[in-house]
Amino acid sequence: MAETPIRFGILGCADIARKLSRAITLAPNATLYAVGSRSIDKAAKFAAANGFPPSAKVYGSYDAVLDDPDVDAVYVPLPTSLHVKWAVLAAEKKKHVLLEKPVALNVTEFDRIVEACESNGVQFMDATMWMHHPRTVKMREFLSDSSLFGQLKSIQSCFTFAAGSDFLQNDIRVKPDLDALGALGDVGWYCIRSILWAADFELPKTVTALRGPVLNAAGVILSCSASLNWEDGKVATFHCSFFSNLTMDVTAVGTKGTLHLRDFVIPFEEEKASFSAGTESWFTELVTGWVPKPSEHTVMTDLPQEACMVREFSRLAGGIKRNGLKPEKKWPTLSRKTQLILDAVKASIDKGFEPVEVVS
Amino acid sequence: MAETPIRFGILGCADIARKLSRAITLAPNATLYAVGSRSIDKAAKFAAANGFPPSAKVYGSYDAVLDDPDVDAVYVPLPTSLHVKWAVLAAEKKKHVLLEKPVALNVTEFDRIVEACESNGVQFMDATMWMHHPRTVKMREFLSDSSLFGQLKSIQSCFTFAAGSDFLQNDIRVKPDLDALGALGDVGWYCIRSILWAADFELPKTVTALRGPVLNAAGVILSCSASLNWEDGKVATFHCSFFSNLTMDVTAVGTKGTLHLRDFVIPFEEEKASFSAGTESWFTELVTGWVPKPSEHTVMTDLPQEACMVREFSRLAGGIKRNGLKPEKKWPTLSRKTQLILDAVKASIDKGFEPVEVVS
Repeated sequence: MAETPIRFGILGCADIARKLSRAITLAPNATLYAVGSRSIDKAAKFAAANGFPPSAKVYGSYDAVLDDPDVDAVYVPLPTSLHVKWAVLAAEKKKHVLLEKPVALNVTEFDRIVEACESNGVQFMDATMWMHHPRTVKMREFLSDSSLFGQLKSIQSCFTFAAGSDFLQNDIRVKPDLDALGALGDVGWYCIRSILWAADFELPKTVTALRGPVLNAAGVILSCSASLNWEDGKVATFHCSFFSNLTMDVTAVGTKGTLHLRDFVIPFEEEKASFSAGTESWFTELVTGWVPKPSEHTVMTDLPQEACMVREFSRLAGGIKRNGLKPEKKWPTLSRKTQLILDAVKASIDKGFEPVEVVS
Repeated sequence: MAETPIRFGILGCADIARKLSRAITLAPNATLYAVGSRSIDKAAKFAAANGFPPSAKVYGSYDAVLDDPDVDAVYVPLPTSLHVKWAVLAAEKKKHVLLEKPVALNVTEFDRIVEACESNGVQFMDATMWMHHPRTVKMREFLSDSSLFGQLKSIQSCFTFAAGSDFLQNDIRVKPDLDALGALGDVGWYCIRSILWAADFELPKTVTALRGPVLNAAGVILSCSASLNWEDGKVATFHCSFFSNLTMDVTAVGTKGTLHLRDFVIPFEEEKASFSAGTESWFTELVTGWVPKPSEHTVMTDLPQEACMVREFSRLAGGIKRNGLKPEKKWPTLSRKTQLILDAVKASIDKGFEPVEVVS
């Protein structure tokens, strides 16, 4: 690599930032450059524990990271309620922004972030890692192949994990002043993204929350489900929860094909990931059996998906920095659509499970 | 087998009766004894093509089958609208009744069938084959194991197949005077059964149809979805359709475990069937991966699931016939619960997707 890698500053020492630090180290066009925390000791410990080079800068505030002129890009894993403030400030300081999900508390907030990124010419991307796995490209090819998959008719997605009692009492994801969107913002984000992805990011016409969400005493969603309806008759449902064993399913069914995977957010293994694809299956009439049976497809990856994400983000940031290219609008557009649906699910819960029109 | 096998009469020559004829032949305690059709020629051809012994009786009416004193049991694959008439008549003639699904057009009709079977002391069973696969027993063990699966929280089920244009125009399953419940009665029946099965047949409190069902010009459902809610917070959704590629999914998620299978109605292969079971899975923090990964379990079967069904039905019928035992109430009870939910889904569609209370 003749080109200088994109220099990352990390705002805060969230657990997930450990994974991202490794990803930045692994990506060939990115480097760990700075970390800031409200406690400089915490930042120093984080840098030492997460492979930062000796030359890396350790700061006692987020501002100091943004004020460092050598920081090209920031990774922001702060609680959702802080996203709009720090992502906007970062963009104003001309830093490219890799932002954890959910991107904001609502789309109005998110639009302020997008506006700041656009007016400052910086790249925005949310940290939805699985979007960058080469498996996702292969699955998209299957869904887009009209002879193998036909026309998309329905999607089901489910992301749950069994949070412990400490998490359910104390984690930022159950606190109304921090990650106020709870399970919907945390795990539901992925379900919504997977549904939109399968629908090639065509927005549904309406979103209806299903009855039976679980909220904590502060009103934060701990478990919920919703259904989505498109103009052309496509339907989708998802379920997300902090109460159930780890499950990460996507099923997309077309007129001719079926896609299944059970580890869409985080693959079972790092070096490779699989999906199941069925095309024009039928059951035999007299003897039990399917012809043809769905087939398993395994896709290798040269980097973990989070490092693929950092590589793509850094490629775009590098193009802007070195070649004066424009930011890639695809990424904030996908984030915005995901947030729109998330907002609609929440609105539908608030309206007693009435359908909510999705207005772009 | 020292005991005389149960002698089956088949009412009508439906396609599915071919599979059941083979199953009756394969079951060690059952034998093909008679077939009746409104056309005696059709009945004769059916008997010749489906392994009936030369001694088998071929009748030109359903009544003649019921009037044959040597027929112990009937298999009734007639259109749903004819179930109540012929199942009641069969019971009154002291024939045990193996009835295709959906068991009736509504639970009021079904109760007449149950009453006739009870008052005549004959066994009732619906022909939901997968209930009798040994895999189903093994999966039940997993779901019932509190250390492996925990408490059930959510279930998703999907059964679709891509019907051709001839089916969508002419099949009895799209005709309001024949199988008036359409896709809900045909494929939705299995989804509902799988959900109830996973919930150990505890009835939900409410059923809510989801928006977006597709009905034909005559008002028959060709595609629909619904959600179910239990008192304790359990939730389930299902999707059934005649428009999508063959898909047969059940996912049940508990606090500690996850069950997955993709061929619940008809296994991919005849001799064996698999399911995936995960327990207390987690993702690793830094390196992509799951620990532990879900495991695949394969269950062999000595007979195809439909023959297991015939064997169990014949065992119960034989116990009544030879030993004066009482009919097993479990089977009509499960049928009735399934029909109750089916009725509730239909009622919810008719009420504009309002939740419908399930009253047993």
